[in-house]
Amino acid sequence: MSVTIAPTGTQDLKLGDFTTERGDVLANAWLRYRVIGDVEAAQENGWILVFHALTGSADVEAWWGPLVAPGGALDVGRHAVVSANLLGGCYGSTSPITWQARHGRRFPRLSSLDLARAHLPLIKHLGVRRLSLVSGGSLGGMVALQWGRVSTVPVDRLVVFAAPAATSAQAIAWNAAQRMAIEADPAWQDGQYREGEGPTTGLAAARAIAMITYRSAAEFEERFSRQSTRVPGRFDADHYLRRQGDKLVARFDAASYVALMDAMDLHDVGDMRVAAAETAQRVGEVIGVGVDSDILYYPAEVQAWTDAYRAAGANARYVEIKSLYGHDAFLIEWEQVSQILRER
Amino acid sequence: MSVTIAPTGTQDLKLGDFTTERGDVLANAWLRYRVIGDVEAAQENGWILVFHALTGSADVEAWWGPLVAPGGALDVGRHAVVSANLLGGCYGSTSPITWQARHGRRFPRLSSLDLARAHLPLIKHLGVRRLSLVSGGSLGGMVALQWGRVSTVPVDRLVVFAAPAATSAQAIAWNAAQRMAIEADPAWQDGQYREGEGPTTGLAAARAIAMITYRSAAEFEERFSRQSTRVPGRFDADHYLRRQGDKLVARFDAASYVALMDAMDLHDVGDMRVAAAETAQRVGEVIGVGVDSDILYYPAEVQAWTDAYRAAGANARYVEIKSLYGHDAFLIEWEQVSQILRER
Repeated sequence: MSVTIAPTGTQDLKLGDFTTERGDVLANAWLRYRVIGDVEAAQENGWILVFHALTGSADVEAWWGPLVAPGGALDVGRHAVVSANLLGGCYGSTSPITWQARHGRRFPRLSSLDLARAHLPLIKHLGVRRLSLVSGGSLGGMVALQWGRVSTVPVDRLVVFAAPAATSAQAIAWNAAQRMAIEADPAWQDGQYREGEGPTTGLAAARAIAMITYRSAAEFEERFSRQSTRVPGRFDADHYLRRQGDKLVARFDAASYVALMDAMDLHDVGDMRVAAAETAQRVGEVIGVGVDSDILYYPAEVQAWTDAYRAAGANARYVEIKSLYGHDAFLIEWEQVSQILRER
Repeated sequence: MSVTIAPTGTQDLKLGDFTTERGDVLANAWLRYRVIGDVEAAQENGWILVFHALTGSADVEAWWGPLVAPGGALDVGRHAVVSANLLGGCYGSTSPITWQARHGRRFPRLSSLDLARAHLPLIKHLGVRRLSLVSGGSLGGMVALQWGRVSTVPVDRLVVFAAPAATSAQAIAWNAAQRMAIEADPAWQDGQYREGEGPTTGLAAARAIAMITYRSAAEFEERFSRQSTRVPGRFDADHYLRRQGDKLVARFDAASYVALMDAMDLHDVGDMRVAAAETAQRVGEVIGVGVDSDILYYPAEVQAWTDAYRAAGANARYVEIKSLYGHDAFLIEWEQVSQILRER
């Protein structure tokens, strides 16, 4: 029996021509994925599938690290965790700039359902027969929710953090403002720039907008108040956003950022009764997790779809994380997140 | 007796060298102002002084039009309303781009207190002996609150709409993200561009960010939901923000926008007991007005300073506007705004 707790590195799976929900073809698509844990035990105890958020990667340990351990909430002693860079992301899967350079046409608009469906060949490729847990937060939560509608293998538990059933007008607006900030940077070139020559100041501004929606007013107040201790004549809150912008620019591509914002905007499970029925056929238990201080995807939105799913006959329930940190709580409140992932 | 209800047009008042709170000198400053109403009656019944919000002007009727009428909440039959373009604004008062071109150095950072103090010579110039009402919303509310600390004439009632005692870390962050969006536009030129050649796409993006904070999630949902009826492949919420951006760019200057954001960031009445005591010496009644759905300057912030002012001995009370519209309610909910301005 081979226990593989150490990272196995990433691998690529060719998807061939991937047809999107809107009917476009993403030719020669591929997914970069990673498996960590005990594959043999997983065939017995079930696999774990997780989806990353907007700027994440297949490297689960980079964003849910404290959960990944033998005996942990993502128990790599008894399971294998599989995660892929979402289509359109910039950490190894098919991404807009490289794909456009190769195919000479615009990267198609992908939806959250597309991002979920792209994982079906991966599950088949790995020989997964059962998923004990499927999870993700924010965009990853949207993809997880869509997975419930299309999974080709049974899923014991689907745990969706901080994601609505359909993206709200205000959340669409936040993404629109971010797109406008990116477009204000002439390097954007309508998304047709050469690899490595994308917009930086525009992407940094977009990240700054997003960071405010990821946190709460109370946390900003506690952390920065009206202090100006870092740079003369600049408030610390301002300095923090600029640093966050710089950090993202150093590690992320603007066209991928826009492609994944598009997927968020296009997130919609459609008729809730149909979605619940599709999900109930595949998933034992659905848990929707809201964060009480989330100002991006409000807890009431999460509660609304869990209620609707339950009313439509799915085994769904709502759980709330109490946190100062807002939307980002699913990446911070390790104790509460672990407990929810372990609950059965 | 001369009843002057029709607009009298605008006039300029030279302020000479204006020393800011931070100790900089704004040489040869001037205010463009407007008086509307019955000046003779105002000497008997008191004048009304109002301050505009971020992108407003001395033309009160352009933003508080429905309130301005004989017998109205701003009763131009019994009073005269005086309003000036705030220092740094782009509607006729000293503004960054024109001032910098003339003086060859950077426009100094102004605070909300500076914007209030710049009106002291105006009140003197007009021979105002008593103000029956001083009011404003948002940035205008901040300036009104500061006026309470420095007024050289007695004020019957000070009505502050949707403004905190000191700008919060989150509100500073929203302004920082807007500045970053403006800076992403190379036309910004560190604020040293020539008149008429300022950033447009950057300013539009900043306006888009601001517009979301001016409204509520519920209003966006009711108004736009997930519709895409205007431009193919673009959500209506996205289209709306782009239109709002274009509209602002056509009428506003980016350097003025940044200067007035700076004044918002620097808004702080300081020690609340001192501020309340200063205000109590000058003002009969202070009314702080919050909007229940405001996500920019939360109602709890307004309530907090009215409570603190009252605790410190000022005659202060809190009133709340109920609205779907968020922060902008003070420019929309005419019935409630009128009633509050009329109350005594």
